[in-house]
Amino acid sequence: MAVLYNKVALIGLGLIAGSLSLAIRKHGLAGQVAGYAKTAETRRVAEEIDLCDQICDTAAEAVKDADLVVLCVPVGAMASVMAEIAPHLKKGSVVSDVGSVKRATIEAVAPLLPEGVTFIPAHPLAGTEHSGPKSGFPELFENRWCLFTPLEGTDPEDLQKLEALWQGVGANLTEMDPDHHDLVLAVTSHVPHLIAYTMVGVADDLSRVTDQEVINYSAAGFRDFTRIAASDPTMWRDVFLNNKEATLEILGRFTEELFDLQRAIRRGDSDQLFDYFTRTRAIRRSIIEAGQDTDAPDFGRGTKTKKS
Amino acid sequence: MAVLYNKVALIGLGLIAGSLSLAIRKHGLAGQVAGYAKTAETRRVAEEIDLCDQICDTAAEAVKDADLVVLCVPVGAMASVMAEIAPHLKKGSVVSDVGSVKRATIEAVAPLLPEGVTFIPAHPLAGTEHSGPKSGFPELFENRWCLFTPLEGTDPEDLQKLEALWQGVGANLTEMDPDHHDLVLAVTSHVPHLIAYTMVGVADDLSRVTDQEVINYSAAGFRDFTRIAASDPTMWRDVFLNNKEATLEILGRFTEELFDLQRAIRRGDSDQLFDYFTRTRAIRRSIIEAGQDTDAPDFGRGTKTKKS
Repeated sequence: MAVLYNKVALIGLGLIAGSLSLAIRKHGLAGQVAGYAKTAETRRVAEEIDLCDQICDTAAEAVKDADLVVLCVPVGAMASVMAEIAPHLKKGSVVSDVGSVKRATIEAVAPLLPEGVTFIPAHPLAGTEHSGPKSGFPELFENRWCLFTPLEGTDPEDLQKLEALWQGVGANLTEMDPDHHDLVLAVTSHVPHLIAYTMVGVADDLSRVTDQEVINYSAAGFRDFTRIAASDPTMWRDVFLNNKEATLEILGRFTEELFDLQRAIRRGDSDQLFDYFTRTRAIRRSIIEAGQDTDAPDFGRGTKTKKS
Repeated sequence: MAVLYNKVALIGLGLIAGSLSLAIRKHGLAGQVAGYAKTAETRRVAEEIDLCDQICDTAAEAVKDADLVVLCVPVGAMASVMAEIAPHLKKGSVVSDVGSVKRATIEAVAPLLPEGVTFIPAHPLAGTEHSGPKSGFPELFENRWCLFTPLEGTDPEDLQKLEALWQGVGANLTEMDPDHHDLVLAVTSHVPHLIAYTMVGVADDLSRVTDQEVINYSAAGFRDFTRIAASDPTMWRDVFLNNKEATLEILGRFTEELFDLQRAIRRGDSDQLFDYFTRTRAIRRSIIEAGQDTDAPDFGRGTKTKKS
């Protein structure tokens, strides 16, 4: 594929930045990828595993002469990182990000943009429950969605180039309004994560059920929750603090619905339960058809070849 | 492996019975496996795919001369199935089951036992989100737990033989009190399922977010919920109706905890959120160490090789 940017700078070297760097280099989409992380230890590991072409000791050095700068830090760190790099950005360059919340990121970044620098917010829907520089892999974005929430007046050429980069690493693209993005993600990601965290916390707290029992018998449904709940704490704290409104709205709907099912259980309303559980099956079928998951039965498995 | 029973009869021919039949036959654990299902269509499919050595048109015929009868029907159907087969059970035979709730199953089955027939309740913690006779596969129980909740006075020889059967199909075994079983499963399975069903229902209901958006962006966490929520509606309705007390207790703990986190989000208490999310990571690590899951990052994936 063609080189799209002479120099790409990644600020933050976690799962997303690491995967993006490896993917950009694998597909030859940039002349050079420079990286910077706040802690010396992360920079050392990134250097050691050759995560980027160049690991810099300061953010200023990383963004110097870069045509594209991607902010790969938790949403709560966007403003301070932007303030740090703003004086060093090249005129005509593009700043983008990978934050899970778009309205708050725009509000944090846009006011700090220097003259002649464009901000294009983006959010790749990809990840694993692992974090840190060693967790990245170049296939992370393949057949995943990358959502763009461009600001009014964005140069179409700048936008197309950034979209070409994400397409180059395998992502499917779509554009949406930032507030709509935050609502959609509250439903498909933020509230499910909060619920999973909560359920894992309840299990851990219950003195009559031992941790060993929870661990041994997790294949019965709980296992998927623990995977979700193992995600990066800083990132998720920032998601909830910065997508407060949509999260609280969806949580309200969720508890309303849960109380309704709870009452059905208490009253023994078997028709209501059966109808509800039947309805939810359909959406699963559609996800499989959309290619976002496979039909292979791996529920509570993943250890098929491992026998005790 | 040695033949443990001359004839095993399976009542109900869904995912669990199908897998058990295939596994018993694969490992040569019984002289013959007979099966019966309520609907003619299920029996026809089972016959067609050679699920058992013999598919019977009546439950009476299936259990005739069987040394072991395993009830593989939803918890709510245990009593009627037991009433149907009771007059036809062989003296000295063992009846077992695979129900997800033990106290209610014992209360349904035990009073209907004829003289000289032993009931040994069991629950294999294995399954997929698929159901029906075609969903079974012989490896389903490998390295999964099978929980026994034997009644007082059970002949140790009968128990050992049944345990040998489950070990023979690859399961790990443990014994526990039926009420404790129901509490443990409420935490590790029943409430997680109810929550997943609820979240999928909320997403489906929200008019401002289209179904297509929910489907496309499910990789962001929601996907695991939809898999759980695709499980068999009849089975799950019966689980909640028959494990009411423990389900409602754990649901109460869950909503209490969820409201606490909700308040932390509303107030912007970043320390509380960070600490909570950090704590839940540990339990995930323990599950991986216990071999009930792998560390491989497949979050929102499963389509690695499929590119758009």
